[in-house]
Amino acid sequence: MTDQAAPPPNDTATELQRVVDALRGARQRWRDAHRRGDGRDLPSRELLAEMVQGLSGALFPMRLGPPTLQADSEDYYVGHTLGAALATLREQAAMELRHDARQRGEAPPPAAEADALARRFLATLPSLRELLDRDVLAAYRGDPAARSVDEVLICYPGVRALISHRIAHELYRLGLPLIARVVAELAHAETGIDIHPGATIGPGCFIDHGTGVVIGETAVLGRGVRIYQNVTLGAKSIPTDGEGQAVKGEPRHPIVEDEVVIYAGATVLGRVTIGRGAVIGGNVWLTRSVAPGSVVTQADTQSGAA
Amino acid sequence: MTDQAAPPPNDTATELQRVVDALRGARQRWRDAHRRGDGRDLPSRELLAEMVQGLSGALFPMRLGPPTLQADSEDYYVGHTLGAALATLREQAAMELRHDARQRGEAPPPAAEADALARRFLATLPSLRELLDRDVLAAYRGDPAARSVDEVLICYPGVRALISHRIAHELYRLGLPLIARVVAELAHAETGIDIHPGATIGPGCFIDHGTGVVIGETAVLGRGVRIYQNVTLGAKSIPTDGEGQAVKGEPRHPIVEDEVVIYAGATVLGRVTIGRGAVIGGNVWLTRSVAPGSVVTQADTQSGAA
Amino acid sequence: MTDQAAPPPNDTATELQRVVDALRGARQRWRDAHRRGDGRDLPSRELLAEMVQGLSGALFPMRLGPPTLQADSEDYYVGHTLGAALATLREQAAMELRHDARQRGEAPPPAAEADALARRFLATLPSLRELLDRDVLAAYRGDPAARSVDEVLICYPGVRALISHRIAHELYRLGLPLIARVVAELAHAETGIDIHPGATIGPGCFIDHGTGVVIGETAVLGRGVRIYQNVTLGAKSIPTDGEGQAVKGEPRHPIVEDEVVIYAGATVLGRVTIGRGAVIGGNVWLTRSVAPGSVVTQADTQSGAA
Amino acid sequence: MTDQAAPPPNDTATELQRVVDALRGARQRWRDAHRRGDGRDLPSRELLAEMVQGLSGALFPMRLGPPTLQADSEDYYVGHTLGAALATLREQAAMELRHDARQRGEAPPPAAEADALARRFLATLPSLRELLDRDVLAAYRGDPAARSVDEVLICYPGVRALISHRIAHELYRLGLPLIARVVAELAHAETGIDIHPGATIGPGCFIDHGTGVVIGETAVLGRGVRIYQNVTLGAKSIPTDGEGQAVKGEPRHPIVEDEVVIYAGATVLGRVTIGRGAVIGGNVWLTRSVAPGSVVTQADTQSGAA
Amino acid sequence: MTDQAAPPPNDTATELQRVVDALRGARQRWRDAHRRGDGRDLPSRELLAEMVQGLSGALFPMRLGPPTLQADSEDYYVGHTLGAALATLREQAAMELRHDARQRGEAPPPAAEADALARRFLATLPSLRELLDRDVLAAYRGDPAARSVDEVLICYPGVRALISHRIAHELYRLGLPLIARVVAELAHAETGIDIHPGATIGPGCFIDHGTGVVIGETAVLGRGVRIYQNVTLGAKSIPTDGEGQAVKGEPRHPIVEDEVVIYAGATVLGRVTIGRGAVIGGNVWLTRSVAPGSVVTQADTQSGAA
Amino acid sequence: MTDQAAPPPNDTATELQRVVDALRGARQRWRDAHRRGDGRDLPSRELLAEMVQGLSGALFPMRLGPPTLQADSEDYYVGHTLGAALATLREQAAMELRHDARQRGEAPPPAAEADALARRFLATLPSLRELLDRDVLAAYRGDPAARSVDEVLICYPGVRALISHRIAHELYRLGLPLIARVVAELAHAETGIDIHPGATIGPGCFIDHGTGVVIGETAVLGRGVRIYQNVTLGAKSIPTDGEGQAVKGEPRHPIVEDEVVIYAGATVLGRVTIGRGAVIGGNVWLTRSVAPGSVVTQADTQSGAA
Repeated sequence: MTDQAAPPPNDTATELQRVVDALRGARQRWRDAHRRGDGRDLPSRELLAEMVQGLSGALFPMRLGPPTLQADSEDYYVGHTLGAALATLREQAAMELRHDARQRGEAPPPAAEADALARRFLATLPSLRELLDRDVLAAYRGDPAARSVDEVLICYPGVRALISHRIAHELYRLGLPLIARVVAELAHAETGIDIHPGATIGPGCFIDHGTGVVIGETAVLGRGVRIYQNVTLGAKSIPTDGEGQAVKGEPRHPIVEDEVVIYAGATVLGRVTIGRGAVIGGNVWLTRSVAPGSVVTQADTQSGAA
Repeated sequence: MTDQAAPPPNDTATELQRVVDALRGARQRWRDAHRRGDGRDLPSRELLAEMVQGLSGALFPMRLGPPTLQADSEDYYVGHTLGAALATLREQAAMELRHDARQRGEAPPPAAEADALARRFLATLPSLRELLDRDVLAAYRGDPAARSVDEVLICYPGVRALISHRIAHELYRLGLPLIARVVAELAHAETGIDIHPGATIGPGCFIDHGTGVVIGETAVLGRGVRIYQNVTLGAKSIPTDGEGQAVKGEPRHPIVEDEVVIYAGATVLGRVTIGRGAVIGGNVWLTRSVAPGSVVTQADTQSGAA
Repeated sequence: MTDQAAPPPNDTATELQRVVDALRGARQRWRDAHRRGDGRDLPSRELLAEMVQGLSGALFPMRLGPPTLQADSEDYYVGHTLGAALATLREQAAMELRHDARQRGEAPPPAAEADALARRFLATLPSLRELLDRDVLAAYRGDPAARSVDEVLICYPGVRALISHRIAHELYRLGLPLIARVVAELAHAETGIDIHPGATIGPGCFIDHGTGVVIGETAVLGRGVRIYQNVTLGAKSIPTDGEGQAVKGEPRHPIVEDEVVIYAGATVLGRVTIGRGAVIGGNVWLTRSVAPGSVVTQADTQSGAA
Repeated sequence: MTDQAAPPPNDTATELQRVVDALRGARQRWRDAHRRGDGRDLPSRELLAEMVQGLSGALFPMRLGPPTLQADSEDYYVGHTLGAALATLREQAAMELRHDARQRGEAPPPAAEADALARRFLATLPSLRELLDRDVLAAYRGDPAARSVDEVLICYPGVRALISHRIAHELYRLGLPLIARVVAELAHAETGIDIHPGATIGPGCFIDHGTGVVIGETAVLGRGVRIYQNVTLGAKSIPTDGEGQAVKGEPRHPIVEDEVVIYAGATVLGRVTIGRGAVIGGNVWLTRSVAPGSVVTQADTQSGAA
Repeated sequence: MTDQAAPPPNDTATELQRVVDALRGARQRWRDAHRRGDGRDLPSRELLAEMVQGLSGALFPMRLGPPTLQADSEDYYVGHTLGAALATLREQAAMELRHDARQRGEAPPPAAEADALARRFLATLPSLRELLDRDVLAAYRGDPAARSVDEVLICYPGVRALISHRIAHELYRLGLPLIARVVAELAHAETGIDIHPGATIGPGCFIDHGTGVVIGETAVLGRGVRIYQNVTLGAKSIPTDGEGQAVKGEPRHPIVEDEVVIYAGATVLGRVTIGRGAVIGGNVWLTRSVAPGSVVTQADTQSGAA
Repeated sequence: MTDQAAPPPNDTATELQRVVDALRGARQRWRDAHRRGDGRDLPSRELLAEMVQGLSGALFPMRLGPPTLQADSEDYYVGHTLGAALATLREQAAMELRHDARQRGEAPPPAAEADALARRFLATLPSLRELLDRDVLAAYRGDPAARSVDEVLICYPGVRALISHRIAHELYRLGLPLIARVVAELAHAETGIDIHPGATIGPGCFIDHGTGVVIGETAVLGRGVRIYQNVTLGAKSIPTDGEGQAVKGEPRHPIVEDEVVIYAGATVLGRVTIGRGAVIGGNVWLTRSVAPGSVVTQADTQSGAA
């Protein structure tokens, strides 16, 4: 932009150039400070959103597939959609592995590694569908307002969040935590339910209403757990190292055993255990373990705290 | 896929087929267990989302209609959009009625029934607009940050949630609970406000911020009620029958009389009555009725609980 | 529609016309009552959503820009995208200024005014990027589950909400409160985090999970503040004038000093000050100021309330 | 639009209404004159365009299918795409049959009829693919500029026109002439090659360049015919009945035997026969039959005409 | 891009910049040579394409409107679509008038002028529909392959070209030759029929097949003219001024009287008159006038030329 | 699809499977016969269409770029668009080189080769713009109906065809004949002008109307050539080898020297030379060379032929 013959650019052009230059400077400083390259090796939110939509359709073709789908060609739709999802996953997984290797200063892994992960993910889908069928049933049985299993499947945000979580959790276990996180956040944006992909959730889970629910990375939920809006299963405090940086990876979220019910607004913090069949009342604040079969209401905890 | 002459497919193709087969098996087991057919007779989320957007535009053409709309052709836009919405509703309603009949093992109803429901819905729109005008005014008057009624209409999630609710509630009353529920969940996903379409809400309602609000199926709200984020108007407990299945349809949510204000985070559970003009403080937990004009704060309920 | 020669229209056509007429009547009554014209001078949600997406891409091209972007042409993408965003802002700002003038019964301002505002906004972007870099770092350091700064940038709803807020806040300061509000509500719909564009937020802010967070118009947050889901920084009560209309513009939300942490579900109301480095526990309800370095837990406030 | 209370609309609104009224009058006069109803029972150009694109992809998945298709899931893509095309055809065929019946004043045919036609069309696709493979080979062998069979398939307008023609011809034979015609005109618009769906074309046909080629309804082409741009195989004159209306359905276009070549700009009119292996030179004007093996050039025909 | 601190960009970035600079230089030279500014005041092909599609739908709502349109709301669709087309035309006309004024070095015309032109165009639509109805009838009567007037309307490229021409001709007469030309070229691209918007065409015109038809700016066609593919109604030679620049605007194309038929490939050049009812044979080359009722075949003209 | 437990599929499903199987068989036979693999390595028509549109915009930003483009950010648009086009070309070129190598049974070339070709193409764009500027001027000067150079650029199909041809010709010269051919056919489909990418065309070329023009692979046109619709510059006959396969690559199309004019419908065949400044009349059929300055009309050639 130094061509002498050119007439002086107008003001907006000059200002635009000044801002473009300044933004480049800011990027450069950031990349220098964090030893980031400028490569484009992060998974794409848009492509993963399409992948999740495709997987949902392949899992429940006549309910979550395209409205024009006919029963006659259900299997073709399923196979075609899985083929496309697999291709996306292979590509995005390769990006994450490459990014990861670059972060650690290692050489990028061979392409076959991403492909193997994608195939292993594919193979988990039938059991994932069985798990989700049990979640759908749990919702239908647990909500007096539900009129049919179909209504539950197409309407309930808790079911949508669990479809995404069960996908994300497999990806997390396969060693693709970043893709898993993007999948989880897409569901969080849509449902207000924030489940970390690391959380382990048993079959027949029902999250009703769901807005504001937070389930942490190391939480473990048994079978038939029921959870209402604004429930937090979180960490009590965050251990930091000498430099004030959070220490990562320690078990720090609750264990919730089979058939537990946790009502709206309850907060359970730390590596505590809520025993089988316990009921935690609404707005309860809980930082200790609870015996199987207990019923904890707000008054209890207050007296407990007093 | 048994053509002998064909060369052996590659691995991915084989694996894909295995997963497609296993998913078909899972679907079959589900359909057998729940006596589901494989018909495609559920309303479509995508088409209903378009319908709601069209109805919003028809109700408030210069505010929620397309940005290019000119005042000169407002009525044509309204008529055209209503015509399209009506056609969608007719079709989706026929699906719901058919689904419903199949659930009950009855013959599908005549097409005229869906058409009649769609026309009856259409006829309610003018009174619905009058109701919504009062909601807009209530929001403008109730929020010190609001600068104009127009800002309220195009920005406030509470107003968006009420537009959807008032549409969903009419559909619910007309006997289309599944379509109504989809409409409600679309608004829930966008605003974080979860109002069951069965809830009865009087004119001049204002829900501020709104994230995490839950209003149950049998709740009844009078005129001029004001509600803040994370308020729950829920059921106290869920009665189950001998088989552990929730009993459906009983009145089990609060009655909130005219001019009541409920601040953020408050929880009101069960078929209790909050008397006219009462004020429920933030984070209050309430499972009993409250006299008209009362002011209930957190301390009150705690002492009440003690 | 009075052409005598025309055959009598069918029923649906007649009903449609009746509803179109009735809706026009309702619009007319509203416009008469509120002295609204029928002009189309409100900013467009759709166009502003595109603008915010463009600005996000221009600020973080290789992370939030299009997946196909190459490092080679980063600057061109940035300049091109800013040029388009500037053009949108110029147009939308002109609409808001015109709307505003009409509200006050004044003549519409000259076009140059909107242009000047758009340029002034443009010039703030480099410093906005620097601010956001510090927010990203704060999130990375504050969350044990975060694996890299890149994950934080592409996944965390708190970061998305702050990108939108820092844009909205500049627009608010430049005198475009309605556009600012639309930008804020777009982020609210996506993240469940509701920050009024008027709120002042220092660098290095981290909002974790975020669903249900509400930060009011006159709130002031210092550096390094950390906030969890469902935290409200709200007003205690809303002063109304003689006609019951809310009095607008008074400082009525908390001041939160540097390095404060506020855990999930806490509610802080009124123009109180949370002193530097204080920690507010989960679910705490607070309507008084707190000294620097204090730790406030639920028990404290309960005893305070007793 | 006669609501007395409404303020007088502005000029544009009045003018718009006047034009809408006048257009309605014009439609009414047309419908009265031609005994047309106002039903919407004509096939849709847009939907048929999608159908043809789908069928092309199903016939040549790795060449004309989506760029992201993987060989692993070719069959699923084919089955899924055929399923969707079948559903569209069923629906569009029902429309044509209904339209047809209404034209003749008969009752609409049962839905099963359209379904049967769609299935019969489906069953012809494998032989259609074999035919097209021979067309592709003919083009590759006949054009010195062609480098590979793949180039021919993805580039040559003559091949695209034949894919559409072979589809259209089957539909025409099944009794769906209107759908067939729409399919033919879509190809005409894209390639400039206008083949009436009634024309019978043997295997191994090659149309080079193609713009301006016209092949009439009753033309019959043998095997291995080669045709260049601007060739017309038309009717000599159009017999009209007593009312000056064209008499429909008579054989009136040429018979072109095997291995004939017709160069650019040649015109062959009437029910004449071009004998096997004949070569018709560029710009030749021909209205008589030609013996097998003849070579006809412009000079010949001129002397013939003198 | 002269920021010294920045690291040296990679090769591609440098090359890209070199090309961007060189292209800017080329643009500058062109603008200097032709005294062009860099303003953006040319009508948009995309927007005009939408406008023509809207107008076609408004003229024939149940045939060329959206497939989902119901007869019940035909008028609303028409009014809504015309309103949108009018708004586009107003805007595009203002651009053309501004461009035109700038070409002549005059001040831009007042906005009211574009608005007046748009309204005058609107008022011509009902008579345009009547004209087109006669074209449709002429096609139906003239083609033995046509089965119904509906087939003609939705399939025949000649009818599509005449819809666009009749729109373009009105725009041309109103003083918007550039918009008119874009409309004509859009039809040319789709149908291969190239009619200059200046050409005057009487009612009941039928252009069959149409590819390669060219009708020049000053051509005049009477009623009931029939034309086949590749017919040219052109200019004999192009008069140039002293500088070799074509002299613009003189009558230089044929006059074709009522009921004339011109068969495929015929070329008629110059300001000659083809008398009423004459028939011009295929491939005829004609540069002289022809008496009413004559039949001219290729042999005639050759002997004429000999 | 042989799972014994599954219930017998319905008829449509069975038929669909039969067709899918038969189509797979047909593909397999083709692949066996032509030693084709099933790899997906052909350039994509869709992506190349986008690339050409981007390049057109980059060459003429304010005329063929997006309607919203502002002069302020012209260079950014150009650079951004070129960056994207370059990325597409790199990818598509790699596919063609790979396909080519596979055809010849060689190893795929290194990725750097495609990259180098893409960069070399990029570097030709400024001179390509200069060439096109001369084409635009030639059109403006040569057509009495043209009112401004801008009209010529945005309307004339001949100019659009030349933009595509000049791009395609560069790609052809760089060794990417398949991509070049796709680019040429995209223009052919839109304009009806079929120029083989191998043809050499000097500056200042004007093709008026253009439908049906065909210019062959080895044609050579000098400066300032003017051509009308339906002109063919073709090969006289196609030499075939012993197996009846066309011999590829020989010079077989005309040489047209500077300032020649060829009127509509003329056909020039074989490696003949039309001397500088010659004029070839409409419909002339020419298979011999012509001296500079000659005027050849239909009568001449007829006498020549007699």
